[in-house]
Amino acid sequence: MRYLVKISYNGAGFNGFQYQMEGRTVQGEIEKILQRMHKAFVRIQPAGRTDSGVHAIEQYFHFDSELSIPVSRWQHALNSAMPDDIAIHEVTSISPDYHIRHHSKGKAYRYRIYQGSVRDPFEKGLKVHYTYDLDETKMREAMQHFVGTHDFTSFTSAKSPIENKVRHIYRFDLIRTENGYDFLIIGSGFLYNMVRILVAYVLEVGQGRWDGARTPEVIAAKDRTMVPKTAPPEGLYLERVFLNDEEREAALEKLKRTC
Amino acid sequence: MRYLVKISYNGAGFNGFQYQMEGRTVQGEIEKILQRMHKAFVRIQPAGRTDSGVHAIEQYFHFDSELSIPVSRWQHALNSAMPDDIAIHEVTSISPDYHIRHHSKGKAYRYRIYQGSVRDPFEKGLKVHYTYDLDETKMREAMQHFVGTHDFTSFTSAKSPIENKVRHIYRFDLIRTENGYDFLIIGSGFLYNMVRILVAYVLEVGQGRWDGARTPEVIAAKDRTMVPKTAPPEGLYLERVFLNDEEREAALEKLKRTC
Repeated sequence: MRYLVKISYNGAGFNGFQYQMEGRTVQGEIEKILQRMHKAFVRIQPAGRTDSGVHAIEQYFHFDSELSIPVSRWQHALNSAMPDDIAIHEVTSISPDYHIRHHSKGKAYRYRIYQGSVRDPFEKGLKVHYTYDLDETKMREAMQHFVGTHDFTSFTSAKSPIENKVRHIYRFDLIRTENGYDFLIIGSGFLYNMVRILVAYVLEVGQGRWDGARTPEVIAAKDRTMVPKTAPPEGLYLERVFLNDEEREAALEKLKRTC
Repeated sequence: MRYLVKISYNGAGFNGFQYQMEGRTVQGEIEKILQRMHKAFVRIQPAGRTDSGVHAIEQYFHFDSELSIPVSRWQHALNSAMPDDIAIHEVTSISPDYHIRHHSKGKAYRYRIYQGSVRDPFEKGLKVHYTYDLDETKMREAMQHFVGTHDFTSFTSAKSPIENKVRHIYRFDLIRTENGYDFLIIGSGFLYNMVRILVAYVLEVGQGRWDGARTPEVIAAKDRTMVPKTAPPEGLYLERVFLNDEEREAALEKLKRTC
């Protein structure tokens, strides 16, 4: 049986999603629990990996199991064994040829910053403190240049081994919060560090250190050195993984009505 | 010169306020920074101590210094040296015979719980997960019995060395939040563990395990064994320290208008 599991986790206590020999990881914690239940190693396959400190409001993984646990019991069985920074929201049985990385149809990421002259100890690890004044209009204008299909070579880690750097961005929204801004981006897929580099770039524009009207030029350059910064990991949340086109279109439709 | 400092801290990373030989404490972190600045040990005097895991939205301490830093520069000087789970909100100069523990006129504490069948990883260390259904009316009724002047022997740690256990409670309010409840209590002073024991008691009432109408009996018994539980520290916030009667009365007046 193949099971698909919907989870969330607070990234503050993890060295990222992917298993490592040293350090606590989301994959490591989950596989340890599955190994205990199965008395054998069980590999999990995530929708995507998140870096050290990065959070997930919604993430998926799947795994194969021959245990005779009814599907309705899996959520509770897993939750009761999980540490308090991982939560299991749903477990469903899926076709044994389903593979989340190949079958999912895009993702939404959120990046959260807060402002004010003094750091807020309760935002530690959850939002990034940004003290410079930001020009909302300039940021929104720059952000619209990324919507559509573009080669994002200028906005990914130069170390990225992936050859095709063309991705489609459906939306890139700026949302005012009680103490700052959230950046919400929905795309077909994202390159390594892409959201954190895009946010760092938009913040430079908002701060007035870079002219947002030159964004098409930066995209066209396909040169990572034009965008030297990467925003810190603790502001980043994997917010949704779209299992199919319908889920993604429904989310986009809802945003059209509210934003 | 004596300086009064208003701070907040996230208790999750501390073994409480008070200095200990082993383990990270709020006092230890602040005194380490003051020692570095003064090249000599500087003792700080807090409005009150908080236990391991307990937070402060507003806490005060004072210290004496002969450094020739203008009072307007102290906030920035301290903040830039603080770790990211302590924030300095204000530094004022006060009379050298002012002592916050003797001169302050009461405190407000908040206790935060959230509900729902699944734990929320983002509430870790910030709110306590409480899965039982709660009867709001029963809780509010029980809470009103504590308002006024009472001997709180039944609601403090049996180990407390303080002889006079009479305290005055001005208000004890239940506030609905987006995912649970906040308990807000304002009093002349609080005994060791008192807020956490009161909240544990009210939750037992709300869950239907104890009849809240018997509260006057429990108070009159002056017997800690009648209230066996203490709510966990991570839900507790020192919310305000009232420097004088006027501050406290203004806060009470404001609550009267909104609650």
